[in-house]
Amino acid sequence: MTLTAGADLVSRVRAGEALACARLMSLAEAGDARFTAEYARFWPELGRARRYGITGPPGAGKSTLVEGLALHWRGLSRTVGVVAVDPTSPFSGGALLGDRVRMGRLALDAGVFIRSMATRGVFGGLARASDDVVDVLDLYGRDTVLIETVGVGQSEVDIARSADLTVVVLHPGGGDTIQAMKAGLMEVADIYLVNKADMPGLDRLVQQLTDILDLREIPPDRRPPILTSVASTGEGVAALAAELDRMHAARAASGALAARRSENLEKRVRRLVEGRLRHDVWETLGLAEALARRVAAGGPHSAWGLADEILDCYRKRRTPESHA
Amino acid sequence: MTLTAGADLVSRVRAGEALACARLMSLAEAGDARFTAEYARFWPELGRARRYGITGPPGAGKSTLVEGLALHWRGLSRTVGVVAVDPTSPFSGGALLGDRVRMGRLALDAGVFIRSMATRGVFGGLARASDDVVDVLDLYGRDTVLIETVGVGQSEVDIARSADLTVVVLHPGGGDTIQAMKAGLMEVADIYLVNKADMPGLDRLVQQLTDILDLREIPPDRRPPILTSVASTGEGVAALAAELDRMHAARAASGALAARRSENLEKRVRRLVEGRLRHDVWETLGLAEALARRVAAGGPHSAWGLADEILDCYRKRRTPESHA
Repeated sequence: MTLTAGADLVSRVRAGEALACARLMSLAEAGDARFTAEYARFWPELGRARRYGITGPPGAGKSTLVEGLALHWRGLSRTVGVVAVDPTSPFSGGALLGDRVRMGRLALDAGVFIRSMATRGVFGGLARASDDVVDVLDLYGRDTVLIETVGVGQSEVDIARSADLTVVVLHPGGGDTIQAMKAGLMEVADIYLVNKADMPGLDRLVQQLTDILDLREIPPDRRPPILTSVASTGEGVAALAAELDRMHAARAASGALAARRSENLEKRVRRLVEGRLRHDVWETLGLAEALARRVAAGGPHSAWGLADEILDCYRKRRTPESHA
Repeated sequence: MTLTAGADLVSRVRAGEALACARLMSLAEAGDARFTAEYARFWPELGRARRYGITGPPGAGKSTLVEGLALHWRGLSRTVGVVAVDPTSPFSGGALLGDRVRMGRLALDAGVFIRSMATRGVFGGLARASDDVVDVLDLYGRDTVLIETVGVGQSEVDIARSADLTVVVLHPGGGDTIQAMKAGLMEVADIYLVNKADMPGLDRLVQQLTDILDLREIPPDRRPPILTSVASTGEGVAALAAELDRMHAARAASGALAARRSENLEKRVRRLVEGRLRHDVWETLGLAEALARRVAAGGPHSAWGLADEILDCYRKRRTPESHA
């Protein structure tokens, strides 16, 4: 019954049924066994969608850009999926009313499937869940999937990097832009986009980026281009879309795309293994509860000592299975 | 020999030797066995330092505030430790020249020990390491320890929350302030500090914060106060310092401090256990290398399938020990 329901859901996703797509995503987010059982069957179909990560500091205009890209590709009759794991994005509920009204343009178009993901309540971590949700969009047949994350914090940057190509969006006058980039953003960019290019400070920011790239001594063919845009008017959006597709095709041809996907696969498997070990120790073996009781009982505790106790329990509770 | 060296180091830290303090922190960051062996002995001495977390978006003025607080307490003859895990902080290397010159005032004062922590190269995660580094400052006898983190990204917010009290620093005119707060910052504040209070938009930001607090219907005695400051001139810094110490004393008296420390201990043990499980699977059992070889060998792979393989190996390689 359970497996039949999962298999039926997958068929309906393949057939392009939006409600089934949303439902399969929910199973994926929850780490439900029906998702993983089906995954073992449908994964060979994956990898057709182009996956583009859009990241950058709050206020850079990422959501407006994502909307612009989606509308651009819809104009070319391509289907688009958006995964917003950015707490500052209107797509994921962080919006003021104006943003919500604006994004209504996308919400009414069946060719654009938007999934917002919250930090809370996701089994096994946001990066694990966003990988699976993007896979569902791939299975659903989306030509292009945009993954929007706020580019501060290591786990958020990891999500942006899990795409085929990553755009780092910056804006002039964000005085903290270059500082924020030191938080790991610098290394993940395949393309720099200076958005809000009609604001003062454009030349200075482009110069700073150029200087930083010069310092890194990247071979010319691998040097990230610096593009500009005014996403609110649409200026520069088509050029970015074209550059993304051009780079994607070039990398597919050169083998660089396959290498990037292998690298991402390795990181993803690490996240999966770690998520399942965490689940094993805390939930399956009930050690979360044991720890809470131990701490609630009061008295002085050594953090490292308690960790030793938990690990001992973990090993002992696991071991009896092999003697059973 | 190894243990003697560790014990000697701890004695020198207790005696107030700065170089020994820095060395013990390095052992802690590296997850060195000499640190953990000593920890089992010195942990009952911990818990004397007041631990204050300072967090907020980039550009809010956290580092200037930390400097101001440190100078203030130095004026009262208290010793101060600073742990900067904020990539945008001048203390942790993200500064422009002006910031570095300014922080020189602290660097020459032996009563202020500053430790900056980088995201990279820390064994078992930054939150794990910062807990241990703060403990070393406690052992070193610092009256007050300030933990500065950039308040975007879940792991960074977790670090700010691992203190006894957490100050969320905001500034007017940061248009993204309220949006950034939705990224988990809202829940961690024991005190809101609106810094750069001489900038336009102060009243509006204070009103927004008040509205948000009203919505949450917090009992009056637990409602975080909203303070203001101009850290660059020192205005409001003494008032913040006084409020932190007042709240700390009140919570120590009411039992709320002990409850917060228990809660933090539980989270910390979870981080320790998870860090050691990760180390176990990837390093000790060599499965990181096995995974890399498997992916490098090419061919299509299922992410979930590979995770199953790794977990099988983990269980099998662990199991033989119990039959040995």
